[in-house]
Amino acid sequence: VSGAAPAAAACGFSAAGVGTAAVLGLGLIGGSLARDLAAGGVRVLGHDRHGETLAAATAEGVVHHALDASLHGIGEADLALVAVPVQAAPELLARLAALLPDGALVMDVGSTKRAVVEAAQQAGLGARFVGAHPLAGDHRSGWGTSRRGLFREARVFLAPAPDAAPACVQRARSVWAALGARPELLPAAEHDRRLAWSSHLPQAAATALALALSDARVSREELGPGGRDATRLAASDAEMWVGIARDNAENLAGAITGLEERLRTLRRAVEHGNVATLHAIFREAARWAGS
Amino acid sequence: VSGAAPAAAACGFSAAGVGTAAVLGLGLIGGSLARDLAAGGVRVLGHDRHGETLAAATAEGVVHHALDASLHGIGEADLALVAVPVQAAPELLARLAALLPDGALVMDVGSTKRAVVEAAQQAGLGARFVGAHPLAGDHRSGWGTSRRGLFREARVFLAPAPDAAPACVQRARSVWAALGARPELLPAAEHDRRLAWSSHLPQAAATALALALSDARVSREELGPGGRDATRLAASDAEMWVGIARDNAENLAGAITGLEERLRTLRRAVEHGNVATLHAIFREAARWAGS
Repeated sequence: VSGAAPAAAACGFSAAGVGTAAVLGLGLIGGSLARDLAAGGVRVLGHDRHGETLAAATAEGVVHHALDASLHGIGEADLALVAVPVQAAPELLARLAALLPDGALVMDVGSTKRAVVEAAQQAGLGARFVGAHPLAGDHRSGWGTSRRGLFREARVFLAPAPDAAPACVQRARSVWAALGARPELLPAAEHDRRLAWSSHLPQAAATALALALSDARVSREELGPGGRDATRLAASDAEMWVGIARDNAENLAGAITGLEERLRTLRRAVEHGNVATLHAIFREAARWAGS
Repeated sequence: VSGAAPAAAACGFSAAGVGTAAVLGLGLIGGSLARDLAAGGVRVLGHDRHGETLAAATAEGVVHHALDASLHGIGEADLALVAVPVQAAPELLARLAALLPDGALVMDVGSTKRAVVEAAQQAGLGARFVGAHPLAGDHRSGWGTSRRGLFREARVFLAPAPDAAPACVQRARSVWAALGARPELLPAAEHDRRLAWSSHLPQAAATALALALSDARVSREELGPGGRDATRLAASDAEMWVGIARDNAENLAGAITGLEERLRTLRRAVEHGNVATLHAIFREAARWAGS
């Protein structure tokens, strides 16, 4: 692949840790990464498409050097973290291939991994790209929600590009471990299949539930504690989820179909007053939920 | 209605408050009621079908007098609180009509109101029955989860029997207000229609989501914080929800159909990569959720 650094050269920077990191996108995940890295003594170069976010992060001393839209100066980074919506990542990765030094490790933090790994590969970053997905997000978004320690004890899936250098994968593990997270390798395609169920389907369920309640003119304030739990994810950032839904369309459509089937079975048991089926449904769900 | 107390006589007990209350069923709601009442100086007579629960409540001093299955001694109560699963309430109300003094107020705390109000009416308790539904439950159940202050700031829907005496309705309001709750009158049929959406549908959604995940062999531990929120209700007491689903079948089936329609629309937009529709769906849901 043209432009790829030789595997031996990639990610060979200071064994003592990252010296300079570039964080591109300062939302909940990127902002929290920047905070933890800065607190850990790393020099942070930062960019965000919202000028006020970048100004706030710089004023708080979390970003030491604000990068403008040209990303001029990013060549100093030995780690680049792409924390933009998934649909914006491919173009950014193509630009990074031309701007970053050969030895720098590149990671993203998006919720889908197959497309971004392919994009990194196509951009010639395959030898030093490790896709990452920290399970630390929730319905909140933006710099104002970022905080230190967000990744402590969080699972982080690592999906290296197929030809990623072992040193880069090891470096990626070390970075997340240093933030207190629990990194686990998971190939990109398998990641997207599994996350369609474990993450994207709960989002789809909460979104559809919110709209059904909205149709019935029921406000969120009318719900009890359990209903508020069940609909919390509906507040998630719309743009981010459109990107995820497009990126993982086939897997997500299959998962939603699975939920539709279970809802239909439940509705029919309700309609027919089928007590045995109702018992089985509620009991099996409660058993799954560990009660 | 035979056996109904004259309206003027009902609920005319001590203006200073309840002297003796009988709490029948000592789960999350009944147990918490008993705790608050006992702490407020009320003498509490209690019964639970589980002997160990009744023994624990008595040993803790929350229940001052344990009633056996005959409910012998309940005639001393000027307030009876029925806190058993909804399908067990009708038979219990019929027995209470023969056991309680004419002036005693009777309330239940179940999640559906139409059937229990009808049962109270048929049992001859109509003049002094006020159905209550405190929005304070969650996925937990049983005496071990009961606690003081559960009803503080909680909304409580009050569905009086059609011929309930105004003094009884006023007394019901006072009892809940004394526990720190916010009582609101809501006729039984309207209660069941609204709660099918605001409470029973979120439960159905969480239950179906749990089963879809179970089908895909995804455990609850694999979920992120948002997915755990979305599935928390799945752990709810199965027996209680079978009763609610039977009791409010028509309304609940309609609400589930509404959710199925929204899920189908979302799935189709995912399948067809319809970006405009996806944007509209996620944005409208986020707006509803108040983000």
